[in-house]
Amino acid sequence: MTTPRDDIGFDLPQIEPGWVWLTGAGPGDPGLLTLLALAGLKSADVIIYDALVSETILNAARPDVELIYAGKRGGKPSLKQPDISAKLVEQAKLGKKVLRLKGGDPFVFGRGGEEALALVEANIPFRLVPGVTAGIAGPAYAGIPVTHRDANHAVTFVTGHSAAGDVPDSVDWHAIAKTAPVIVLYMAMRHLGLITERLIAGGRDPQEPVALIAQATTADQKVVTTTLQGCSQSALVHEIKPPALVVIGKTVNLRDQLDWLRDLPDATRDTKPVGRQHPV
Amino acid sequence: MTTPRDDIGFDLPQIEPGWVWLTGAGPGDPGLLTLLALAGLKSADVIIYDALVSETILNAARPDVELIYAGKRGGKPSLKQPDISAKLVEQAKLGKKVLRLKGGDPFVFGRGGEEALALVEANIPFRLVPGVTAGIAGPAYAGIPVTHRDANHAVTFVTGHSAAGDVPDSVDWHAIAKTAPVIVLYMAMRHLGLITERLIAGGRDPQEPVALIAQATTADQKVVTTTLQGCSQSALVHEIKPPALVVIGKTVNLRDQLDWLRDLPDATRDTKPVGRQHPV
Repeated sequence: MTTPRDDIGFDLPQIEPGWVWLTGAGPGDPGLLTLLALAGLKSADVIIYDALVSETILNAARPDVELIYAGKRGGKPSLKQPDISAKLVEQAKLGKKVLRLKGGDPFVFGRGGEEALALVEANIPFRLVPGVTAGIAGPAYAGIPVTHRDANHAVTFVTGHSAAGDVPDSVDWHAIAKTAPVIVLYMAMRHLGLITERLIAGGRDPQEPVALIAQATTADQKVVTTTLQGCSQSALVHEIKPPALVVIGKTVNLRDQLDWLRDLPDATRDTKPVGRQHPV
Repeated sequence: MTTPRDDIGFDLPQIEPGWVWLTGAGPGDPGLLTLLALAGLKSADVIIYDALVSETILNAARPDVELIYAGKRGGKPSLKQPDISAKLVEQAKLGKKVLRLKGGDPFVFGRGGEEALALVEANIPFRLVPGVTAGIAGPAYAGIPVTHRDANHAVTFVTGHSAAGDVPDSVDWHAIAKTAPVIVLYMAMRHLGLITERLIAGGRDPQEPVALIAQATTADQKVVTTTLQGCSQSALVHEIKPPALVVIGKTVNLRDQLDWLRDLPDATRDTKPVGRQHPV
């Protein structure tokens, strides 16, 4: 039951030599890659990728592609942000077709703007390819709409740590507690206790429903529903580790009815790679 | 310079008979379709689509597909929300492979939750397929990151009208003015004057940069940069009409440097459909 591979129905652009495509790979499920991300994978000479980009996705690249790891997680050596920007410029100046592949969307807490500015500075032509962001798709895969009629007319996405790794000083958690009916936290596991304390101090109901979503949209996705007061402890008990999202708000309750993934037959669950494997 | 059509590299799942895929088509550019949305287009017996889904995208469907228009815009007769849900249930009960195709993401002000609940109620199996949302991709196509290091650790998406068409009562615009460093308004053109007045009354700088983005990510995209105080007038002068987004916040200033679309050669601009045309 698979779609014939010879019938995309669209002619996609390719990366030109000397260009960089700053591209979102989506949250994890390869089925959430965009056609442009796919076109980038198919045409790139070199791919500079982050930790959150899966091997399954990289396997769709050309057999002779050069893969450069720029992640900040795991045991492998990682590049610092200025080094990543320098690497993009260097590869483009060599006349390569460069795909910069980032988890989720490059501009939603993805530091894509910094890399784009470095390219402008170096006079390298580039294209921005948005991706499906984990903060929307992760909840959807858990059966949680980030907006729902009657529940909320606004949703706020917040990162749980600053570039330095601290809780961001510029975030007024008390004010967010008062104004944001649904809050989606990215990268919040490290400071979750502190953040939830601040939200409750700002007037948020300690019993408000919360979902913790680890490895969102992947085959290893894990979802725990809890309360604002209890979520820090729940994360420990259920071993929810980064990368993970936290959804706070009453749309979390819709999961009871909308947990579609529970009922999906295994056979139709995954977008599976075909063909050869790269050493990653 | 196109990607060979015979090499997707992934085997995609198909819609099963009697199932509904509640699917985001992305903001407009067919290149921002996900692989799962493409798989849905290729396998659907019937597609129930919104006004914001383009003909170009529908052209990728099967030649014998049945197309049902459910939009709320333009001269064609449109279905009301309960009628749309009833149509989904009816088609699924006939054993059809049903694709419900919505602009952007189904859960970001897309009323996907209501449709999903109707499917649960009727015991129809379904899958949720998130899409790239216009509120992230539209700004990206205008060279505006919705988040940027040093500028903001939070971004708030707000709809500019309620289901009844009014400015939503539940949105505390004064509070949002105080807490949200970057605000992206969906469907706000009708009440833009009122909304910007409220934001300024809430303490927002009248000179704060604003971008108006019409027809985001399509070949007809139109971007106007202005100020909070001036944006309502600018929308009139420059004839910015729905569908349009409003981005408020200092990341708007990055457009001066990051307007990549201006420099993109026409030849590589578009993801073009190949093959036959449907009457739409």
